[in-house]
Formats: sequence, C-alpha cells, structure tokens
Amino acid sequence: MDISSIVGLIFAFGLIIGSMMMGSAPMSAFISIPSALVVIGGAMAACMTCFPLSNILGTPKVMLKVLLNKPADVKGVIEQLVSLAETARRDGLLALESRMDEVTNAFVKLGIQMAVDGTRPEIIEDIMRTEVDSVATRHQTGKGIMDQLGRFAPAFGMIGTLMGLIMMLSNMSDPSSIGAGMAVALITTLYGAIIANAIFMPFAEKLAYINKQELSSMEIIIRGVMAIQSGENPRVIEQKLTTFLPPKQRPNRDEAA
Amino acid sequence: MDISSIVGLIFAFGLIIGSMMMGSAPMSAFISIPSALVVIGGAMAACMTCFPLSNILGTPKVMLKVLLNKPADVKGVIEQLVSLAETARRDGLLALESRMDEVTNAFVKLGIQMAVDGTRPEIIEDIMRTEVDSVATRHQTGKGIMDQLGRFAPAFGMIGTLMGLIMMLSNMSDPSSIGAGMAVALITTLYGAIIANAIFMPFAEKLAYINKQELSSMEIIIRGVMAIQSGENPRVIEQKLTTFLPPKQRPNRDEAA
Amino acid sequence: MDISSIVGLIFAFGLIIGSMMMGSAPMSAFISIPSALVVIGGAMAACMTCFPLSNILGTPKVMLKVLLNKPADVKGVIEQLVSLAETARRDGLLALESRMDEVTNAFVKLGIQMAVDGTRPEIIEDIMRTEVDSVATRHQTGKGIMDQLGRFAPAFGMIGTLMGLIMMLSNMSDPSSIGAGMAVALITTLYGAIIANAIFMPFAEKLAYINKQELSSMEIIIRGVMAIQSGENPRVIEQKLTTFLPPKQRPNRDEAA
Amino acid sequence: MDISSIVGLIFAFGLIIGSMMMGSAPMSAFISIPSALVVIGGAMAACMTCFPLSNILGTPKVMLKVLLNKPADVKGVIEQLVSLAETARRDGLLALESRMDEVTNAFVKLGIQMAVDGTRPEIIEDIMRTEVDSVATRHQTGKGIMDQLGRFAPAFGMIGTLMGLIMMLSNMSDPSSIGAGMAVALITTLYGAIIANAIFMPFAEKLAYINKQELSSMEIIIRGVMAIQSGENPRVIEQKLTTFLPPKQRPNRDEAA
Amino acid sequence: MDISSIVGLIFAFGLIIGSMMMGSAPMSAFISIPSALVVIGGAMAACMTCFPLSNILGTPKVMLKVLLNKPADVKGVIEQLVSLAETARRDGLLALESRMDEVTNAFVKLGIQMAVDGTRPEIIEDIMRTEVDSVATRHQTGKGIMDQLGRFAPAFGMIGTLMGLIMMLSNMSDPSSIGAGMAVALITTLYGAIIANAIFMPFAEKLAYINKQELSSMEIIIRGVMAIQSGENPRVIEQKLTTFLPPKQRPNRDEAA
Repeated sequence: MDISSIVGLIFAFGLIIGSMMMGSAPMSAFISIPSALVVIGGAMAACMTCFPLSNILGTPKVMLKVLLNKPADVKGVIEQLVSLAETARRDGLLALESRMDEVTNAFVKLGIQMAVDGTRPEIIEDIMRTEVDSVATRHQTGKGIMDQLGRFAPAFGMIGTLMGLIMMLSNMSDPSSIGAGMAVALITTLYGAIIANAIFMPFAEKLAYINKQELSSMEIIIRGVMAIQSGENPRVIEQKLTTFLPPKQRPNRDEAA
Repeated sequence: MDISSIVGLIFAFGLIIGSMMMGSAPMSAFISIPSALVVIGGAMAACMTCFPLSNILGTPKVMLKVLLNKPADVKGVIEQLVSLAETARRDGLLALESRMDEVTNAFVKLGIQMAVDGTRPEIIEDIMRTEVDSVATRHQTGKGIMDQLGRFAPAFGMIGTLMGLIMMLSNMSDPSSIGAGMAVALITTLYGAIIANAIFMPFAEKLAYINKQELSSMEIIIRGVMAIQSGENPRVIEQKLTTFLPPKQRPNRDEAA
Repeated sequence: MDISSIVGLIFAFGLIIGSMMMGSAPMSAFISIPSALVVIGGAMAACMTCFPLSNILGTPKVMLKVLLNKPADVKGVIEQLVSLAETARRDGLLALESRMDEVTNAFVKLGIQMAVDGTRPEIIEDIMRTEVDSVATRHQTGKGIMDQLGRFAPAFGMIGTLMGLIMMLSNMSDPSSIGAGMAVALITTLYGAIIANAIFMPFAEKLAYINKQELSSMEIIIRGVMAIQSGENPRVIEQKLTTFLPPKQRPNRDEAA
Repeated sequence: MDISSIVGLIFAFGLIIGSMMMGSAPMSAFISIPSALVVIGGAMAACMTCFPLSNILGTPKVMLKVLLNKPADVKGVIEQLVSLAETARRDGLLALESRMDEVTNAFVKLGIQMAVDGTRPEIIEDIMRTEVDSVATRHQTGKGIMDQLGRFAPAFGMIGTLMGLIMMLSNMSDPSSIGAGMAVALITTLYGAIIANAIFMPFAEKLAYINKQELSSMEIIIRGVMAIQSGENPRVIEQKLTTFLPPKQRPNRDEAA
Repeated sequence: MDISSIVGLIFAFGLIIGSMMMGSAPMSAFISIPSALVVIGGAMAACMTCFPLSNILGTPKVMLKVLLNKPADVKGVIEQLVSLAETARRDGLLALESRMDEVTNAFVKLGIQMAVDGTRPEIIEDIMRTEVDSVATRHQTGKGIMDQLGRFAPAFGMIGTLMGLIMMLSNMSDPSSIGAGMAVALITTLYGAIIANAIFMPFAEKLAYINKQELSSMEIIIRGVMAIQSGENPRVIEQKLTTFLPPKQRPNRDEAA
C-alpha cells in the first residue's frame, strides 16, 4: 500500500494544529462550527449543483481510493501474461480455460475469456478499449469533483469572511469588539484555504497520477492479450511488454540516462 | 429526473441565508436592492455585449435544462435499436416504417426515417453528425453564457465595492459612519461572489457534463442506425452498443476495475 | 443588425453612471481626467508595444464591427448557391457569367468567377481556403488587441492606484485628507475595472463569436462552389448545405433534441 | 522599420513619469534604487535559474529585435522567387548560380543554393523545415524569457513590499513614520507592476507576433523553392504564393470580406 | 557545467538577504523558525499527498540535476555516430562490437548493441522510443513536483498569515503589540513567496527546458542508429543529423535569419 497520501494528510494537519496550539491565542480562537458549515457545506452544495447525485455519492469511495491506493503490480501482470502466452502457444488458446482461476486481474480475465471464447480480435480490442475509456471517464469525474471542491471551498471561505465583515462593520458601537469580529470573519477564509490546499487539491493531483498509472497498465494488458490471441512468440511478447517498465524494474538491460 | 442541481442550489442558499440570520447583525444589513442591480444587471449587460440577442434570450431555457435535467435512458435506446434491427433483418428496412410511432427519441427517428427513405448511408451519417455538431455548438454557447456570467458577476461586484469605497472615503466628515459605509460597499462583492459560486459556475460545469452525456448517447444512436441500415446481425449490434454503458448497467459481463 | 452589443454597452454604462449619481457622494467624486489618461493611455501604450502600427490603427474598425455586426444571411446564401447550381447544370458553367451581377457576397463571387474562368478545382479550393485563413488571422489579431486592452487596463488601473497611495502616504501631515487621497487613488482601479469588464473583455468574446459564425458560413460557400464546379445535382447540394443550418431555420425536417 | 513598440514604450513611460510629476508628492517619493534592485535583480536572478546562461545573454538582442523589428518584405520576396523561377525555366537550374548575388534573404539563398547544387528535393525540404523549427525554437526561448521576467517582476515587487511592511510594522515606535514606511514598501510593488506591464508582457506578445510573421514568410519561401526546383510554371507559382498575402497587397483580385 | 541556475539562486538569495540587512529593522525581524516550518512543511506535506513516496524521495536528485545540469554534447554524439556509421559501412555491423567501449552515451550504446545483436529495426525503434517516453515521464513527474511545491508554498504562506492574524486579532488588549503581531503574521507569506519565486517555479521551468533538450538529443540518436543499422552513407547521415544543431554549431553552411 502506498501510504504517502495518508502520511501527507497527517503531516499537514499536524503542522497546522501544532502551530495553532503553540500560538499566543487559545485553541478555541480557531474553532468555529458555523464557519466549518459555511465552507464545507457551501463547497458541497456547489458541487451537487455541478454533478449528478450518483457521482456525488461516489466521492467518499474516490477519496478512499486516494488514501488506500495500491499500485498495480505491473511486473507481476507481465509475468502472468508471458506465462499464459507460453501455455497458449504450447497447448492452444483453449488450454487457457483451465488457467482462468489463477488470473486475479479482472481486465486480464475479461480479455483472456474473450480470446478463449473465440471472439474476433477486432471485437476484443474494441471492447477492451471501450473499457479503458470507461475507466478514464470515471477517474476524470472523480478528479473533477475534487477540483471543484478545491475551487469552491476557498470561494465559500471568502463569502463567509465577507458576511462576517459586513456584520462587524454594520455594528461598530463597541470598538473593542472589532478585533474579535475580524478574527471570527477570517476563520472561514482560513478553513477554505486549509481544506483546499491540504485535502482537495492534492487529492485531485493524486487522482490524475493514479489514472495515468492505471491506463498505462491497461495498455500493457491489451497489447499482451492481443499478442497471446495472435499466437506470438512468448519471448517477443516479454521483450515488448517490459519496455513499458521503468529501467530499474527491467530484468537485464542497460539503462539510458 | 436528476434533482441534484435543485438540491444543491437550495442547500447553498439555505446555508448562506441561515448564516446571515444567525449572525449578530440584523438581516437587513445584507439586503441592498441597488447592489443586486449593479451585480446582476452589470453581469447581464456585459453578457449582452458578448453574445447575440437570440442566445441571451435562450438563457432561462438553458438554466431550466440544468435544473430539470433528465438523463437520457441510454439502456432503453439500445434495446429499441436492437429490436428495430431484428425487425429490419427479418422483414427488411421498409418494415421499420410501421414501427416509427414507437420511436420517441427524435434523433433515432431522424436516422431510421432516412434509412427507410433509402437515403445513402454516407449522407445519413453526414446529416446525423452535422446534427451532433449543431447540438454541441448550442450547448457550448449555453455554457459560454454561464461562464461569462460567472466571470462578470464578481467583476461587477468589485466595481460596486470600489464605487462604494470612493463614496465613503470622499465624505468622511462623520467617522462613525465609516463602518456602515464599508459594510454597504462590501455587499456588492458578497453578492457577486455568491451568485458566481452558487449559481453560474456550477451551472456551467453541469452544462459541460450534460453535453458530454448527450453527445455520447448520440454517438451510440449513430452507430446503431448505421448498423441497422447495413443489415448487421442484431446480436453483434447489441454487443457493440452495450460496451458504451458503464459496467454496472451491462447485462452480464465481468467488470474491470 | 444585431443590436445586442450596443444595448449591452448602454445598459452597463447606464447602470454604473446611475449608481454613481444615486450615491451619497457628488458625481464629481468619480470624475478624474488624469486617472482616465493613465488607464486608457497606459493600456493603449502597452498595446502599441505588442502589435505593429497597422493593426493598432485598425482597432476602431474592429470595435465598430462588434457594434454594427450584421450576421451573414446564411439561408439566403444557400438559396443563391442552389439557384446558381441549377443554372450551371442546365446551361453549363459559362452561363454563370451572366448572373455574376446578382451575387453580392464577395466570397461567393470569388469562387464562382474562378469556376467560370476554368481554374482547376484544387487551385480554387486552395485559394478559397487561404482566404479563410487570412480572414481568421485578421479576426484573431482583432480579438488579440481587445484581449490585451482588457488585460492592461486593470493593470494600469492598479499602477495608478499604487502611485496615488504612495503620494498620499508620503504626505500625511493632514490626516483629514487621507480619505480623499485614497478615494482619488481608487478611481484608476475603478476605471480599469469598468473599461475592461464593460468594454474590452465582452468585445473580445463577441469577436470570437463573430469569427466562428463567419468561418462557418465561408465553409458552406466553399462546399457550395466546389459542388457547383463539379456539376453535382442541385437537390443534393441543397440537402448537404442545409444540414449546416440550426434546426429551426431548415425547410422541413425533424428536429433532434 | 516598425516603430510601434518604441512609440508604445515611450508613451507608457511618459504617462507614468508625467503622472508622478504632476502629483502632490515630490518626484523623489517615487525613486528608490534599492527597490529597483530588488525587482529587476530578483526577476533577473529567477530567470537565470530558469534558463542556461547562453539564452540569458541573448536577452538584450531579443529586446532590440522587438524595438527595431523590420517586417520582412514578403511581396518583394515573392517577386524575386517568381523572377528566379523564370530564369530557371528558361535557362535551367544551373543558370541561377549567376543570380545568387542578387538574393539577399539568407533563407532563399540557402534553398536556391541547394537546388543549384543538385541536392535531392526531399533533402532540401527536410533541411529547410529543420531551419524553420530551429528559428521557432529560438523565438520561443526569447518569448519564454520575456514571459518569465513579466511573471517574476511583480512577484519580487510583492516580496519587496512584504519585506518593507515587516520592517515598518516591527518598529512602530514613531506612528508618524508609518505612512512614509508604507509608501516606501509599496514602491517595489509599483516598480514590479510597471516593468511587467509596460515592458516584459508587451515584449512577449510582440515576439509571438514576430514569430508568426517570420514562420509564415519562411513557409512561402519553402513552397517557392520547391516549385522552382520542380520546374513549375512561373505564373502558377506566382498565383499560389500571392494567396498568402493579405487582400490589399495582392496585385489584382477581388477581396472577400 | 551550466552554472546559470546556481548563480541565479545565489544572486536571488543574496539580493533578498542584502535588502533585509540594509533595512531599518534588525535581521531578527525576518527570522522565524515556526513560519519556515509551516511554509516548507506544509508544501511538502501537500506534495506527499499528491505523489507516491518513491517520487517524493527522488526530489533532491531532481533538484541537484537542475543545479548541476551538464548539457549533452550533441555535436560530439553526432561525430561519434558518423564515425560508427563509417565503421559499419566499411566492415559491417558486427565490427561495431569492438568499438562499444568507446561509446559513453548509454542511449547510443543501447541502440548500437541491439543493431549488433541483429534485432529487427522496428523492434529497435520501438524499444528506443519507449525509452524516450520513459525519460519524458520521469522528467514530467519531476517538473510536476516542483510545480506543486511552487503552488503550495505560497498557499501555506497565506494559511500561516491567516493564523497569525487571527491570533493577533483575538487578543488585542495591548494595542502596541498589533504592529509586531502583524509583522510576524506576514513572515509566512514572505517565506512562501520567496521559496516559490526564487526556487520552485524557476526549477520547474529549468526542468522543462532540460527535458526538451534531452528529448531532442535522443531523437538525433534514434535517427542516427536507425541510419547506421540500414547502412546509409555516412555523409548523408552527417548532413541529416547536423541540421538539428543551431546554425552556429554547424560545420559550414549559410545561416538563415
């Protein structure tokens, strides 16, 4: 499991909360439930207006995906594809039927099953590529929601601060309360900046990264399945697929700078 | 009907108005008809300069479309196309004439009618694709107007605040009125931020989303009509078209992560 | 004539001037010739640095084009092309010579004249497409100047305000003059925001819109002239060209949503 | 010579200095050598980090190019190419050897020399297009440096102002000096805004414009040389090349709107 | 070695520290360990959330690469490729085996080794181009981290300042401490602006530049290896490859403007 995102999140909030506690003001000066409601509620409301309900409801799953992201074992997938290619070459495509249980990757399974079923190669590729598009679209929507939350959170933070300033300014009978009023007004801007910069914007970036990795490994699988289906030499398949790996992970070849 | 946008809108304004009412200042401190006029009127005036009158007049219809957006029943359309393909295969293209009344989707109707009339395939595709371009252009203009309103509303909010500040600063004989003057000046900025972030920007995003959905379903229809016209096997047509659906909605196939 | 831009401009300035007059400060508080000079002069100077003199001198013509924009009568052009196609089919291409006087659209004239002169089709298309590129380039430069004016006007507004603040701050012997000094300083920012948001940015948007319309109608003309030159059936030409029109303007066909 | 950029520069600085002199504060209030050092030095330092030394050292030459930009005489180049085509057609390609001295444009010379030397057409085109890429890359780097200077100058202006504010605020024993302190702090922001908006940003725009012009005239020359090399009819060459000119500069043809 | 980035970095920090020391406030007014922690720690934490740990850990190496960037000796590589081409033409591809030790560039080595091994040309090109993609992806990730650090550093600077302002405002019992409180609050904004504009943003730009250079030299090597493999004339290879060099570095040819 890639714990970088969890560590980053804990680190960011630890820093912020630590700074608040070490400051000259009591911690309570930084806590305001109504401010949190305006910023988080406002950003969520704006996002609900942007996307259909089904996508909004998938947001927690998307955020968990960022936190628990387990990078695909591309090397293992390539080894399995090469092993399947050997079986297919030796005993024919139908012999793969008996090995379907070993295959854990759903996308490899989909492709090999179609090859075993005798589906025409162009239909196999068409269906697998539509699958890739469908995964990319789901990722884009997930990233889109994070992007919009990261954009609307500071905006509603500013809206909250403007409301606080108007309240304070329209009632300045007691000058000594001006400072406290402004402090309260600034809290929504602070909340908006924190959740956008510590959560939503980094999550959107991470989703873009995960998407790129996943599409790249799906591309490798498509090439592998097509090669198996056409009965190519397992050695050539291995050589072709390993060129997708970064130099350090390849079996034995010179690295280029 | 997808009520996400209506709920989002109500939620956003509920939050904002609730915060205003719960604040220390009376609600009247947040209400200013002239400020609303400057922000909304200014944004509308700038938009009128940007677009021809006919597009501007279509804005309410575009906004209703976002609120009442009813996602196309893509699965139902595919089923109907497959059923039409069966009829066409069994009884010939002309037999579709008698089934035209069942077809409710105007775009399916347009395509099937041309096929029945014996229009050449390349003309059918050309006309259907021009239709798609025309729909895309209308959506883009609708999104463009929302984008511009979301950009000019905060700009005119700032213009209003600058005018308010200049008024206040050029007449500071009574220092006690400074606070109230600034409060009034800030209201236009608040209004600009609210209508841009709670209405226009989310509406522009939603229109982009609706556009993508609609173009995708038109693409499915074009492929279906072309396949019917060329007399393809209804099973193959079904297999091809269902690959466009998200995994969960497909009849029975393994899902890829 | 499309009066939307003129109405938008009058509406925007009416609102702004009305708000100024209804305010608590005298109208004179908002008028400053030096401020107008810094904002408008500065934006023009920066634009002169950006573009060659010939383009700068064409700016008034470009702005008039936005205000007096008369949308091309695409439907009429298509009717004329179909009528010319009928003549060409009945009496040969040379018979078009006698109808050249009817043709008012310069681009149709250019194409038909070359066809009558017996120019080879690929040369005709090459020349007409170069003409399209040349029109697009001119529009882009016009839009570019509006874009830059809309970007430099607020920048010079800010420069003016900074200069005003420095003047005020470096001479604060009389505290009662601070308010008035800041009011004067803010006027350049106000001017910059107004002319950018009420004039230059909307004009740039409108030019982009006009460009798209014009290129689309030139595309229709090119297709029409090429079809006439190759002696296609006038009915087929009509069918092809009308698919470019929005559904409502087409003679009689079902509309797709 | 196109003096637009020089005039724009003088106009912009004239306006700014004029406003400073006409203001209520003495001119000295606007002059601060350390501020100029922070803004200009900081922007230059950041740019040195961005680009290799050789590119940084070419900046004065790039800026001179903007100021002294002499637009290529495209019409004259086309006339010369047509005249060379006539010679080549009448007396053979080798006859161009004797006319090489007339050719002043280095790029025409490069192409014609290769044609005379009997280089194969695809090699000629390959070399000429690599030349075009190399010119485009140099222009892009020049524009990139201006872009970065225009982005870092205001950033270092803000850094200078923040440093000034911190100095002032940490030493407020004498309240009467606050105004002067802030005035000094704001000068770096002013300097950053002026040099970015009056110099670097417009220069970047102008370089983009010059690049487009130059690449377009190189494209004309490549087409001309290739046509000469293949022995095309000089009239056809002229017709093809003049379509690249704006309507007003063409010998005699109808202008399209 | 290209020392431009090191000089730029030293120059920028020299200027900033010099200005701080020459100012009216003591140097200590600008030093705050907690502020540095919030800005640098916060930007790093946000970046950890954006990228997997392995990429984050490579950041120091990426930054060293910018500082110690040694531009590839493209001219030398071309000379070596031409010399290898001569050997290959005279003594056959296998004769290159004995010259492998001379080749220092790993990418040339990779290509020549495959050619010597008798790998098919399309496999050689496929593997070399995948290598190029892999280098480009690594550079993009490196640039991406710099981009994000340059974006999050000012954001956490602002978050720190907001926290400082809230602390100060919620405890204004001693008015004389307001100035000092604000000064402290502004330090995080200052730190964020400095490290973004003096370090991370310029480093991101430099990485983009280095990437472009490296990809261009890899392109030259691919073309050279493919030409050697196909036994092309060494003179033609030289002519083709040197057209990639800027005019000044080419052996002897006229320069185009």
